[in-house]
Amino acid sequence: MGILERNDTGAIAHLKLNAPERLNALSDEMLAELQGQFDALKDDRSIRAVILSGEGKVFCAGHDLKQMTAGRQAEDGGKAYFKDLFDRCAAMMMSIQKMPQPVIAQVHGIATAAGCQLVASCDMAVAAEGTRFGVNGVNIGLFCSTPMVALSRNIPRKMAFEMLTTGHFIDATRAEALGLVNKVVPHEMLAATTNALAETVAGKLGAAVKVGKEAFYNQIQMPMEEAYDYAGDVMVQNMLYRDTEEGIAAFLEKRPPEWEQ
Amino acid sequence: MGILERNDTGAIAHLKLNAPERLNALSDEMLAELQGQFDALKDDRSIRAVILSGEGKVFCAGHDLKQMTAGRQAEDGGKAYFKDLFDRCAAMMMSIQKMPQPVIAQVHGIATAAGCQLVASCDMAVAAEGTRFGVNGVNIGLFCSTPMVALSRNIPRKMAFEMLTTGHFIDATRAEALGLVNKVVPHEMLAATTNALAETVAGKLGAAVKVGKEAFYNQIQMPMEEAYDYAGDVMVQNMLYRDTEEGIAAFLEKRPPEWEQ
Amino acid sequence: MGILERNDTGAIAHLKLNAPERLNALSDEMLAELQGQFDALKDDRSIRAVILSGEGKVFCAGHDLKQMTAGRQAEDGGKAYFKDLFDRCAAMMMSIQKMPQPVIAQVHGIATAAGCQLVASCDMAVAAEGTRFGVNGVNIGLFCSTPMVALSRNIPRKMAFEMLTTGHFIDATRAEALGLVNKVVPHEMLAATTNALAETVAGKLGAAVKVGKEAFYNQIQMPMEEAYDYAGDVMVQNMLYRDTEEGIAAFLEKRPPEWEQ
Repeated sequence: MGILERNDTGAIAHLKLNAPERLNALSDEMLAELQGQFDALKDDRSIRAVILSGEGKVFCAGHDLKQMTAGRQAEDGGKAYFKDLFDRCAAMMMSIQKMPQPVIAQVHGIATAAGCQLVASCDMAVAAEGTRFGVNGVNIGLFCSTPMVALSRNIPRKMAFEMLTTGHFIDATRAEALGLVNKVVPHEMLAATTNALAETVAGKLGAAVKVGKEAFYNQIQMPMEEAYDYAGDVMVQNMLYRDTEEGIAAFLEKRPPEWEQ
Repeated sequence: MGILERNDTGAIAHLKLNAPERLNALSDEMLAELQGQFDALKDDRSIRAVILSGEGKVFCAGHDLKQMTAGRQAEDGGKAYFKDLFDRCAAMMMSIQKMPQPVIAQVHGIATAAGCQLVASCDMAVAAEGTRFGVNGVNIGLFCSTPMVALSRNIPRKMAFEMLTTGHFIDATRAEALGLVNKVVPHEMLAATTNALAETVAGKLGAAVKVGKEAFYNQIQMPMEEAYDYAGDVMVQNMLYRDTEEGIAAFLEKRPPEWEQ
Repeated sequence: MGILERNDTGAIAHLKLNAPERLNALSDEMLAELQGQFDALKDDRSIRAVILSGEGKVFCAGHDLKQMTAGRQAEDGGKAYFKDLFDRCAAMMMSIQKMPQPVIAQVHGIATAAGCQLVASCDMAVAAEGTRFGVNGVNIGLFCSTPMVALSRNIPRKMAFEMLTTGHFIDATRAEALGLVNKVVPHEMLAATTNALAETVAGKLGAAVKVGKEAFYNQIQMPMEEAYDYAGDVMVQNMLYRDTEEGIAAFLEKRPPEWEQ
């Protein structure tokens, strides 16, 4: 098995970070594997939902500091490498939002720095009780500036600021109250709960979820009137799908829809 | 009585969706009635607060799917009709923010799809215990793209995403914790609580509430420094009202204000 | 002692509003004192965190209404004075975000109107149990338009709208749930808790906190991709600090960092 396992069950692709001895760090190799899978998945119409989990004791501990330190050997002290690294990392995180299928983080143990960013970047997240979340780069002198882009769009700003400048962790219950995760369950129910959520999403009309997800992240950055113009056009398009016509007809006739998708 | 009842009590206009047999659906007729009332109310200086409620078992179940389906008979498959429908619906929702008086949703039973959007679009909302909220169009293949414009500006994004892609409902308590409603009360206290909130708002200086409400939605979309420039100008204007001068004088003299408004 | 006390303890500057007989109102003099201190602190590299508290029964009751009323004597009815006043006040509030050191509000008693804005403008806030927060200018006919700029960027919009249009107060527990304060503690633990938070922040690498805080408020106003481009550049810069190199090396070698800062 490689450092990123993929197992598909029906319409659900399950990606598992599989470098437990390195705390599933987002090394160059791991970033490339994730990007490769997201690129492949985005055009795979047989997959309707994606789960992202981690093997071993923690979900993900962020960047690979040993690899980053090795990068300092370059003539420019690592500058070009770091720039490229953060660009690749941000591109991977944005790929999650840009792909048509909802991506659910299945989180346990610890999610720190870019690992916490990964949770924040997923469309939804389920966490095991006791999971701890932190953007604690500040403890070693490296402020989690890129993780904060995702984090500060998930939770209230004073809480994000506290996590970023103190390095303090929050637990799963607090993460749920703040909006970083959707649900917290006992560890033994983590996989089943995440799977059930993925199955629910996968059971919807894929074309509707696809346009909806795309519209979600587009409209949220627009002024409100522009957002309505845009979302209205999306709904018109959605109404004209044959499967949507069938879905509405079935609902009015109180029968299950027969979708072609 | 028509499909939208209006009863005024003092400075409070109470609009009631009154098509219970159709779950108060936002049909063409209902949209027109609502738009007509909001247009009339916005220039009615005797009204200082508006309550919006629903007759029957539910607050509002969203668009009228039968009517939408009938629209498919047009030569273009309904495209022009749907575009016009969503434009009219969005315009009505935006009218709530644009009118000078605060509008309070008084919600019970169920608020789904555009019905949930209606709650999100009101300035404030009070819900009866047990009320359920959903943007569940995805269940019939029609993603709630326009409702999400309002919803995603009320609650944290992961929760909005979950509601939109799973079709799952949240109950009133959860809606309050997330920010979709201001207050949850037992059903028998719903009307009285909403009314008390409306009376409180109606007792303030109308001119101050008017400029304040307008500024609220304008500044929230601006970069922070621009927002301060703008809000500062609004406060200067507000300070120069004769009634505000009297309000401040009365406060300093520890007596009730005598407002001309 | 003047109306704004400053006491430094190590790397922490403690500013205390000291006009208790005027409820620590933000008079022209108080605004000038605060601005002067923030201007001095922003270039003082020996200070790593700032605490802002209030002497007497309340934290801060907002603008000085007597002084504002006196301003009406001018030929223009006070228009120019009010404009200048709100400009100075907004500039002072923005200075908090613009200075490199985190600023923590230590709040007790009451924080109203511009006093509540001051809490919302600080990077973090700790409140004593029982503290009450309000933007209640509407009660005297003066909508809290400038305070809402800060408040509506801290808490969900329906809650902000309710506070602004009803003048109702929320207590510390509710303020914490909404995101206006980070933590609520018994009054006797207020100073110690705030101090511990300031010490934690002051113990981090100052250069990292500085670029991180600046980036926090810049990126939060950007579209997401632009935010990532910008934050990536900030992280590259941060990686190249000699102290950050040492911080990462020390972490990998499981020893405390030896920072030059």
